[in-house]
Amino acid sequence: MARPRPLSPADAGFLYAETREAPQHVGTLIRLQPPEDAPPEYLRGIHERLRAAPSVVSPWNLRLATPWFQYNPLHAWVEDEKFDLDYHVRRTAVPAPGDERELGTLVARLHASPLDLSKPLWELHVIEGLEDGGFALFVKVHHSLVDGYTLTKAHERAFTTDPDSAQSRLFYDVPLKTSAASDDLAASWADPAGLLRSAGQAARALGPLTRALTRLTWNRGPLVGTFQAPNTPFNERITRNRRFATQQYPLARLKRLAGASGTKLNDIALAACGGGIRRYLLELGELPDAPLVAFVPVNIRPEDDPGGGNAVGALLASMATDVADPVERLRAVHASTTEAKNQFVGMTPEAITAYSQTLMAPVGLQTLGAITGLGTPRVLFNVVVSNVPGPPEPLYFAGARVVAMYPASIVSHGLALNITLFSYAGQMHIGFTGCRDTVPHLQKLAVYTGEAVAELEQALALES
Amino acid sequence: MARPRPLSPADAGFLYAETREAPQHVGTLIRLQPPEDAPPEYLRGIHERLRAAPSVVSPWNLRLATPWFQYNPLHAWVEDEKFDLDYHVRRTAVPAPGDERELGTLVARLHASPLDLSKPLWELHVIEGLEDGGFALFVKVHHSLVDGYTLTKAHERAFTTDPDSAQSRLFYDVPLKTSAASDDLAASWADPAGLLRSAGQAARALGPLTRALTRLTWNRGPLVGTFQAPNTPFNERITRNRRFATQQYPLARLKRLAGASGTKLNDIALAACGGGIRRYLLELGELPDAPLVAFVPVNIRPEDDPGGGNAVGALLASMATDVADPVERLRAVHASTTEAKNQFVGMTPEAITAYSQTLMAPVGLQTLGAITGLGTPRVLFNVVVSNVPGPPEPLYFAGARVVAMYPASIVSHGLALNITLFSYAGQMHIGFTGCRDTVPHLQKLAVYTGEAVAELEQALALES
Repeated sequence: MARPRPLSPADAGFLYAETREAPQHVGTLIRLQPPEDAPPEYLRGIHERLRAAPSVVSPWNLRLATPWFQYNPLHAWVEDEKFDLDYHVRRTAVPAPGDERELGTLVARLHASPLDLSKPLWELHVIEGLEDGGFALFVKVHHSLVDGYTLTKAHERAFTTDPDSAQSRLFYDVPLKTSAASDDLAASWADPAGLLRSAGQAARALGPLTRALTRLTWNRGPLVGTFQAPNTPFNERITRNRRFATQQYPLARLKRLAGASGTKLNDIALAACGGGIRRYLLELGELPDAPLVAFVPVNIRPEDDPGGGNAVGALLASMATDVADPVERLRAVHASTTEAKNQFVGMTPEAITAYSQTLMAPVGLQTLGAITGLGTPRVLFNVVVSNVPGPPEPLYFAGARVVAMYPASIVSHGLALNITLFSYAGQMHIGFTGCRDTVPHLQKLAVYTGEAVAELEQALALES
Repeated sequence: MARPRPLSPADAGFLYAETREAPQHVGTLIRLQPPEDAPPEYLRGIHERLRAAPSVVSPWNLRLATPWFQYNPLHAWVEDEKFDLDYHVRRTAVPAPGDERELGTLVARLHASPLDLSKPLWELHVIEGLEDGGFALFVKVHHSLVDGYTLTKAHERAFTTDPDSAQSRLFYDVPLKTSAASDDLAASWADPAGLLRSAGQAARALGPLTRALTRLTWNRGPLVGTFQAPNTPFNERITRNRRFATQQYPLARLKRLAGASGTKLNDIALAACGGGIRRYLLELGELPDAPLVAFVPVNIRPEDDPGGGNAVGALLASMATDVADPVERLRAVHASTTEAKNQFVGMTPEAITAYSQTLMAPVGLQTLGAITGLGTPRVLFNVVVSNVPGPPEPLYFAGARVVAMYPASIVSHGLALNITLFSYAGQMHIGFTGCRDTVPHLQKLAVYTGEAVAELEQALALES
């Protein structure tokens, strides 16, 4: 058996942050359409192939060395010698009529349920009973094992681009490094001095981080600072229950909008989300005067990084929810993200890493509150909006076409709504993850966000 | 709004005992067969009727006053002013082929998931996709709200005995007293002296309890004492995962066996379970020399009690798993239960109540260990075997016949297997609830228990 592999502090942070109300796993809902000539027993055959899978590779066969000690300062991965594929790969079915609504309800329940920390931290649910004749996979992976970017890369590498291939590989056939820091830290397991050194490196990053946050806080102009986020229903305490809704647009529509307005694709997405949220909050009678602030995680890996562990930074941007006119809203978003990017570029790599470690874990809210002297009750930002770039080409699994991939993400106290965008095969897919009891009628928000894109097109005189 | 209703110490005990590995709720799996002339939209119509249900009555609309304070010494129920039937009544489906195995897997997963302590402590899952053309209900209720007996009474009173009635009442339409002690305790909420008096009553019961346990421990002969339970795989630490399996026999078969052998129905059931467990443990190579000891909860209510809260005592009995011959095993079980009943009858009502409070909550294992000086690692008994008497007549819901009702119960550290028997409409239904990771192949145990009854019939020269 291989030696224990210590988790990086960032990865371990997601274990410390795990609570019943805020489990720290991410998900992917993958919708598939079997080949047209698929026999009736096609799906059954897939189950049998999945059950008879070859050995599961690292990190998918790893479990925590001390699952009973959630706050272990030295968490490590060890191989699960009792690995049982039947536990991780599960079949389930959507009740009639098998439509979007029923699928969303099922996924919300699956996503609400925490992973068993004593086993390898992932589950795969094979979902049947969809009215379109297709099936779906819902994958849950703990954020301490991989981030959304890495999970995406694993899906991309497991699936094939060949529609005629019978290949039925899934993410757990794809080997990954479990932690960006694990090689450095592996030695420190038996070397406390080494561990102190790496803690020292993290501490040294606090200087640039504090300076960056101070600039952020005191800044004037279009850059969004942490003083500016209004209170909204999205920033209440959450319960353990979830809702999940989806939306998608052709990427070409968004790109045409970006081109016509001289903005970026991300600006279009943020402005559409802002438009959807504006209408949603107006209906609830809860739209604040000040614009909502989005927390936008940014991948800080080199472009060719195969993924593994966590490597993300973040920036804050206005969603311009105070602006009624769609084009003006887009301009306000664009001005805000342009400034924020400059801000981000100005940070040193250490500062970006520390920023990530401070902000990405939900406990980071408190830490950030403490650092900036704002205190925890203060709302620093309202909504997390991630954009994870996915594969551009259509993918296939066992001859079935992957027709859509929607991300499901983490919500936490004070951040009851997460919007994650995922581009795949010419479509922008959006997964809305919300606390069931804090964010009512999440489905409406998905619909309004779709309509906000059409509004922009109309305002810019583009045909949709 | 009504004033808060304090929980009795016994009811509150189930909240204190609640952990991620051992949620303290009980369940009922109810299988139904729609009328022969049911239209295709029959099930959909039921969902719509359930969604449009009239107001839910007490205690089904009550939630804990302080759900965030699990160890509150003064837990109380208050009305949930945000009660949302859609949260509690859920639709789900069994994957193909919709057989016993898939249903068992689904129920095990639903049962493994803890109830949300911040809401009324029950869920109803309407299950479709069964291969026999029927549907099922799976009901989860926290043991702090009602015990299995009371839940059964609520089902019995909600359903109708009239096959032609369209009545679609469910348990949450049936009002119940939430706690046997709640009337006495209600005053004590604002009256600490009253609370101290009731604590004093509980403390006074400890004298008779200690004497009873001492007699139990020092006793010789067929009565099973707490020194005698062997170590088995059922008495390990559990995980949060579950398996669920079922078995049933016609009551007439069991009664004929009891008559032919001069024993009781309960003895036949215990001997059959003992036979099943013997074969199961033999196959695992884990059969201990000493017989396994069953913990048998006994309802201590008067026969016409409508239920509400918790009121159970318990006795310990040998399962005679060391005896290969089925008839000799039955005689050994009978001798053990006869002695145990005499023992139980000799206890005062206060002692029985204290016994219940000490033993029924899983934390009671430790308490009992401490009282008897045995310490916690010692196995006091191996398996919980409950027998809950159900309604003798066939019941109906919305014109559908209730064809079977299986109980799902609680397992805990050191007690990884629970067997609950439930008689209904001439059939004895058995629900086997086990920890998925501690009790492998639970389905086999259900099969072997069925075969043990046939063995007894053969040995007693009765035709099955």
